[in-house]
Amino acid sequence: MAEILVVGSVGYDTIETPSGKVDSVVGGSANYFSLAASLYSPVNVVGVVGRDYRDEDLQILQSRKVNLSGLKVEDGKTFRWSGSYLEDLNEAVTLKTELNVFRDFDPKLLEKHKQSDYVFLANIDPTLQMSVLQQVNSPKVIGLDTMNYWINSKKNELNAVLKKVDIFLLNESEALKLAEENNIVVAVKKLSEIGPDCVVVKRGEYGFFMYSHGRYFVLPAYPVAQVVDPTGAGDAFAGGFFGYLSRNGDPKSFRAQQEACVHGAVIASFCVQDFSVRLLTQLDWPKVEKRISEYMQVVSFASPKS
Amino acid sequence: MAEILVVGSVGYDTIETPSGKVDSVVGGSANYFSLAASLYSPVNVVGVVGRDYRDEDLQILQSRKVNLSGLKVEDGKTFRWSGSYLEDLNEAVTLKTELNVFRDFDPKLLEKHKQSDYVFLANIDPTLQMSVLQQVNSPKVIGLDTMNYWINSKKNELNAVLKKVDIFLLNESEALKLAEENNIVVAVKKLSEIGPDCVVVKRGEYGFFMYSHGRYFVLPAYPVAQVVDPTGAGDAFAGGFFGYLSRNGDPKSFRAQQEACVHGAVIASFCVQDFSVRLLTQLDWPKVEKRISEYMQVVSFASPKS
Repeated sequence: MAEILVVGSVGYDTIETPSGKVDSVVGGSANYFSLAASLYSPVNVVGVVGRDYRDEDLQILQSRKVNLSGLKVEDGKTFRWSGSYLEDLNEAVTLKTELNVFRDFDPKLLEKHKQSDYVFLANIDPTLQMSVLQQVNSPKVIGLDTMNYWINSKKNELNAVLKKVDIFLLNESEALKLAEENNIVVAVKKLSEIGPDCVVVKRGEYGFFMYSHGRYFVLPAYPVAQVVDPTGAGDAFAGGFFGYLSRNGDPKSFRAQQEACVHGAVIASFCVQDFSVRLLTQLDWPKVEKRISEYMQVVSFASPKS
Repeated sequence: MAEILVVGSVGYDTIETPSGKVDSVVGGSANYFSLAASLYSPVNVVGVVGRDYRDEDLQILQSRKVNLSGLKVEDGKTFRWSGSYLEDLNEAVTLKTELNVFRDFDPKLLEKHKQSDYVFLANIDPTLQMSVLQQVNSPKVIGLDTMNYWINSKKNELNAVLKKVDIFLLNESEALKLAEENNIVVAVKKLSEIGPDCVVVKRGEYGFFMYSHGRYFVLPAYPVAQVVDPTGAGDAFAGGFFGYLSRNGDPKSFRAQQEACVHGAVIASFCVQDFSVRLLTQLDWPKVEKRISEYMQVVSFASPKS
């Protein structure tokens, strides 16, 4: 059975949205990704937390069969992020970032993790993403997510690791910024030329824009009547996407990547319906299958007569 | 054969976009709508121009079999609009609006136009939209478009005419504004409760969001690598949408409206690829059919395994 290795942040978030405010809730890219991807395949997390990370929050992951042998617990405080969506539900305003134990994070893979076939480099410093990648023997599929902060501050390092990546997931404003373009149709081609065969642009409530094998696949998000908290939706999308691929016999095919996008969109739609990882921890197959069927109703149509 | 009656503006635009600037080019909702809809059915325009409206610009419409017997030519200057997309290709900044002969426009329908089955009330004062509607004997399908200006200044008049409308097309920010909601999934339901069975929200490069018969149909735009001028894309969408319906035996069915959305999206994608109505005047069936097929490649997928 395929297993997924993910490196990313495990932390605590304080979030304010029009629906309310939550303090020190489970957050970080690896938490969201793992809870989503573990619906599909076993997930191994590489990351670091401080002594203040609560046992019950580790149990959330373990109850989903996420293996935490690669998660270091270090003296010091856990990574913390604080953000607000009061101005715009589509874009977080970062109020505060405390790296804490993440500042000196230097991931050393366990021997068994070096054998991983499916490696996902969630949004962290591209230097760390490269370090992890170099420790894996012969990965079959490599995915990567990033953010504006690294595009601005470590573009060369990011480009270096992207050369080795199969699937590049990022949001729309990041894609335009990195490609130095104002049109997404052009931008994804340029990003693909850096290295990744498959580029998946996450567009929030407008869905996704995939470019792979020279072809486009574009769909909207599942219509959610109340977006409570958009935090982690992109990581949940990546988890659903990468999780689905890890179960597919032909993960580099356009067809598998299309299906993976649909799974990513559906998992992300659950994520935003409550704060933090609350709904992700309650997800099961019947819920996912039901929503995939509903999603297909919304975006499917018969060939129009002309 | 079904004919379409459209009332709307016929005018001249001066437009600046990142691709360049054009001065006094053919514009106005009725021009864009008619050129699109006349690909499907004969169109009769109700509107007004001034003595300065160029014969060659009337011939553009006549060459597409758009009937202009309802277009009055009055002493005075033609309606003019000037806008810029230099800041944001998704939203025009209006630099100047000169109503001119449009200021005292009081549409009186010719007898033959009173028999129209398909009536489209393009974006003009809702009082004029109501006046036109009251002159039509027994329309089969009524469509309406509007804009923020009327939502802000004539909301009661707009609501009154909406009670009589079957299909309401408007853009996303307008839909949220009129519904007083910040979520489009909720907003379309509220708009439908005013009267229209079918609400089609135009989302620019993100496509459309339809709500009809209690169901959603949502798709992205056709991917255009160079958006030259977004002006009129919404009216072109409406023309393709309404034109398609006028040829369908069951124009109030969800299925026909889905297909109409696809046609609208495809016609709009041509519109934005050049300034003014330039590409619309060159459209023919083979081009439309080819792009519908390309569009379906971009948004279609097989049911994902789960």
